[in-house]
Formats: sequence, C-alpha cells, structure tokens
Amino acid sequence: MPFKEIQNPQAIEDKSFAIITEELGPHSFTDREFPVVQRVIHASADFDLGRSLVFHPQAITAGIEAIRAGTPIIADVQMVAVGISAARLARFGNAVRVYIGDADVAAKAQAQSVTRAIMAMRKAAQDAPRGIYVIGNAPTALLELIRLTQAGVARPSLIIGVPVGFVSAAESKEQLMALDVPFIANRGRKGGSTIAVAIVNALAILAGQPES
Amino acid sequence: MPFKEIQNPQAIEDKSFAIITEELGPHSFTDREFPVVQRVIHASADFDLGRSLVFHPQAITAGIEAIRAGTPIIADVQMVAVGISAARLARFGNAVRVYIGDADVAAKAQAQSVTRAIMAMRKAAQDAPRGIYVIGNAPTALLELIRLTQAGVARPSLIIGVPVGFVSAAESKEQLMALDVPFIANRGRKGGSTIAVAIVNALAILAGQPES
Repeated sequence: MPFKEIQNPQAIEDKSFAIITEELGPHSFTDREFPVVQRVIHASADFDLGRSLVFHPQAITAGIEAIRAGTPIIADVQMVAVGISAARLARFGNAVRVYIGDADVAAKAQAQSVTRAIMAMRKAAQDAPRGIYVIGNAPTALLELIRLTQAGVARPSLIIGVPVGFVSAAESKEQLMALDVPFIANRGRKGGSTIAVAIVNALAILAGQPES
Repeated sequence: MPFKEIQNPQAIEDKSFAIITEELGPHSFTDREFPVVQRVIHASADFDLGRSLVFHPQAITAGIEAIRAGTPIIADVQMVAVGISAARLARFGNAVRVYIGDADVAAKAQAQSVTRAIMAMRKAAQDAPRGIYVIGNAPTALLELIRLTQAGVARPSLIIGVPVGFVSAAESKEQLMALDVPFIANRGRKGGSTIAVAIVNALAILAGQPES
C-alpha cells in the first residue's frame, strides 16, 4: 500500500474524525454528546471504549456552563493536568489544579494511613468544592470523591470519571453512575489519563462554540 | 456483587498483575519482554494492545543499558514527560526532555512550514542524538525521527514508538519496525501517551533490578 504522509494537524484531525464517524456507524448518543465520544475514540483508536461512555442527562450542559463560568478544573494526576488544553481554556480563565504531588498531601496521607490520591481529593474538596473533577487514573480518588460528594463536602459541577484498571476501576465508575450529580464516565476496566483529557478538551471546544 | 475496596497501592498493583497474567494466557513474549507487556496492559486494560507489542531483539537490553548509563530520555509531548517516573530514574540521573513547547521550535516550524512535532525531533536530534526516544502521541514526530535516523543525524539508543490514531499512526510504526535500531512498538492504530509511559517505567524497573 503506498503511504502518503499528511503533516497538517487540522487536515489530520479532520480526516480522523471522518473515519471515526464512518466506522462507528449507528449509535444512541445525542448530537451534543457525540463530539465527546468522537474525541475519546480519536485519543484511543478504540471504538469499544467510545461506545462504553455514559453521560448523565445534564452532563454536557453542566460541563459547558461550568467551563464558561471559569470553574476550576481538578485533575487526579499531573498527566491529566498537562494534557488539558490551556489554549482552549484561556478565554474562560479556568485554573487547572492537581494536588497529589503536594508536600502536605503526602505528609497527611502518611499520618492518616490513606493513599495520596485520597488525601488529594480531600484537599481539593476544601479548595474547590464546586470544581470540575477529572479522574483519569486512580479508582481510589474517584471512590473518595464519591464519598465526599455524598457527605456534601464536595458539590462538583461535573465529575469526569474514567479511571483505568483491574482493581476497583469498573466498580468505582458504577458507583459514580448511581450518584445524582452530572457525570461523564464509562463502563468497564478501560479508561485512563488520555481519555479524561479528551473529554475535557471536547467540552472546552463545545464551550467555545457560540450555539452550544 | 459485594465490592471490597483495596486502598494499598502495592496490593492493588500486585492483584492487577496477577489478573493480567492469568487472563492473558499463553503468549510468545520472552521473560524479559513480558514485564513490559504486563505494564502496558495494566495501563490500558486492553489485552489486544498488549499482544500487539513488537520488540526488536536487542530492545530490552539496549533500553536497560541506556537507562543505567543515564542517557537522556526524549518525549514527544509533555504528557509523556510528566508520566515517566522521576523516582525510578533518580539513581541513574536520566534527564527527561520535551521540545515541542519550546519557543524556538514554534518559530522555526512556522518559518519552515512544518509541524512543531517535526521541528521538535530535529532539535532533539541535535541535542541528544543517542537519546532514548519516546513517541506516544504524534505519528509525524515518529516519521521525522525515522528520517533523522536513516540520515545518521539521530542514532537513538532505543526508540519507543507507540503513537495512536487513524492517520499515519499504524504506518509510522510499520516503518519503525523496518529500521535496524532497537525499538519497542505495536501494530495497529492503538497506542498513546499512557502506553509510552508504561513502557519506559517498566524498563526503569528492570534497570533497577540487579539481575536484569
């Protein structure tokens, strides 16, 4: 097969999205959810992962409104934080925060015998109870965020919960889906930081469009 | 199903790796390649992606030796750079570098009408021609690195090439596999920053073991 390299980033993205729409075929996502699904498939080349996404009915509206209001975005790990497009958020002024590397989080986690991921969520809930929470890596962070939300300590504008893994990941996401709070999650073991980033960046693009 | 949460990070990892080994079943990876395959599956929950990995016969040895020698690690994007375990590399002193955000890279890319990913690889090849190159995101970066290697401008100690996507990703990895240089890659569209990070971190663990 002759291979013709395309170097223009926008041309690459346009062609990718056309392939994704064609190969995905029929689906039951709404017109406003579909751009998020597309970007997840774009980031993973995994149609099953795209199909596994579950949206709370208010998720897209809540996410767009929260981004436009400049709501802080809380990431569970640094990989998620640096992947979020600062350029797309600049006009809205959302801070992107990650607490897991903080010295006080590490000290308190050790003192209280819990993971740094858990202690980072507790600090986040104090700092930004109404934040957009983005969990791409650690099921223990998502489970703690669910507890904090149930306790009324956190009242997230949106929870993006797509941790990956073999222990607790699928279960943590099922617990999230039972919560009465706007969420975007997926069923099963798959997920990860790149998936979380794709969802945030898709919402940031929607927030930047006048008609969304 | 009663759900018992496990919070200890090492216990979670141990259980995850046991599940992976059991569910993967028979495979043809060597004993030294298998820890890398395990960690990729751990990062993706995707057995097909793990099975799609391809190792140059010298890849593991070259990777371990390069890490132990303190060879710089060149990442294509910031998400890869921040995901690489600084703690595991500290004893070897490997710098982790990423050029795509550099102001001079952006300026030269615009002046020469190429992507920043391409220009970043050209700068990397000047700065660290013998580096460990880790491409998790951009097929255009991998294709440029292949050209630089064929031209003798870069002489990578190891190329980890696992870009994801629908345009050029699979083709770029096939070109890498035809190169006479130590590489770790995978067949097909899947891949990504978390996969690239998993491979580097698996090699860093092997480098830290006395018998590897």
